[in-house]
Amino acid sequence: MESNKIFRQLNFLREIDRLKSVMRQSPLLDQSRKENSAEHSWHLALYAWILAEYAAKHVDAGRVVKMLLLHDIVEVDAGDTPIHGVLDGSQAARESLAADRIFGLLPPGQCEELQALWREFEAAESGDAQFAKALDRFQPLLINVFTEGGTWAESDVQYQQVLERYGPVIQRGAPALWEVARGWIECHFKGAASQWNS
Amino acid sequence: MESNKIFRQLNFLREIDRLKSVMRQSPLLDQSRKENSAEHSWHLALYAWILAEYAAKHVDAGRVVKMLLLHDIVEVDAGDTPIHGVLDGSQAARESLAADRIFGLLPPGQCEELQALWREFEAAESGDAQFAKALDRFQPLLINVFTEGGTWAESDVQYQQVLERYGPVIQRGAPALWEVARGWIECHFKGAASQWNS
Repeated sequence: MESNKIFRQLNFLREIDRLKSVMRQSPLLDQSRKENSAEHSWHLALYAWILAEYAAKHVDAGRVVKMLLLHDIVEVDAGDTPIHGVLDGSQAARESLAADRIFGLLPPGQCEELQALWREFEAAESGDAQFAKALDRFQPLLINVFTEGGTWAESDVQYQQVLERYGPVIQRGAPALWEVARGWIECHFKGAASQWNS
Repeated sequence: MESNKIFRQLNFLREIDRLKSVMRQSPLLDQSRKENSAEHSWHLALYAWILAEYAAKHVDAGRVVKMLLLHDIVEVDAGDTPIHGVLDGSQAARESLAADRIFGLLPPGQCEELQALWREFEAAESGDAQFAKALDRFQPLLINVFTEGGTWAESDVQYQQVLERYGPVIQRGAPALWEVARGWIECHFKGAASQWNS
């Protein structure tokens, strides 16, 4: 019945409040604390909106915005997956179970819509998903560059590893952003003054 | 030139990182801390997406999502405006200046687009803006109901004040949500067990 529908929707919106307590490795730009996954998702949605013209393929920016709003919701159950860390092979399975449970709180129709969009993001095959993935890699890179190395400094990540861990994903989804990022990376690892602040 | 354009866009995206440090009055649902305006904006964008069918008028949900992603960005300069507090008459002027400065970081075209969307939200005349405003009032109400009163308890806000401060805005933009909210408010102030958790 309809009243059940609205309460399912509101229950989902209550449940995802927990994403505000999932902490990422990246700091805020002012380095006052680490970033959480909810505010990271807000920021990425704006990246998608403002930077859509740099997508490798034509994208539906509104769809990428939605994809990025929900891309980390599974972390409510599964936790964050750091770029630089020991990856646990069961993380993908945990995230898939999380998607079933959390999107399953929604009424039929919306449940399938959000599930499908999240799985499209994970598969990284469509143009929209590849652009979303590129931004999800570009944003922490920007943070690292402007916080004297951020998670690179913390985890002793070297120049070549940065190129390998960020390059392919960003270049595939947003080549113009990779051009900018590569310049920053060069400056950072060569110890030159950032071209940005000069 | 084009390279200047991308650096203007990235500078805007860097600047709005500060919204993550603007604290609101409302707590998280688990009451571990107060909510910040960036994660609040993320949450509201999802409210718009999931609850669009309850808008009083037909709305463009994608447009409302964007409106809510940017609705609080002016707080980077102007600070948060609590619902229950002494309002300073110059707040609107400060926010308008903030919009000029912050959206002015963007290149022509996007600057005007975001300015216009923010001013439409503030004017609360279009159907999209009235729905966005309703959600912006409904979300903290939901938090208060599920945190034993939240900011109502803190500021000693009474039943009749709650009806007056939340009712008109929510009812105008999303009457079905006001029906739900009114039930919660009755339960809360009558001290009855919440119908939700029963």
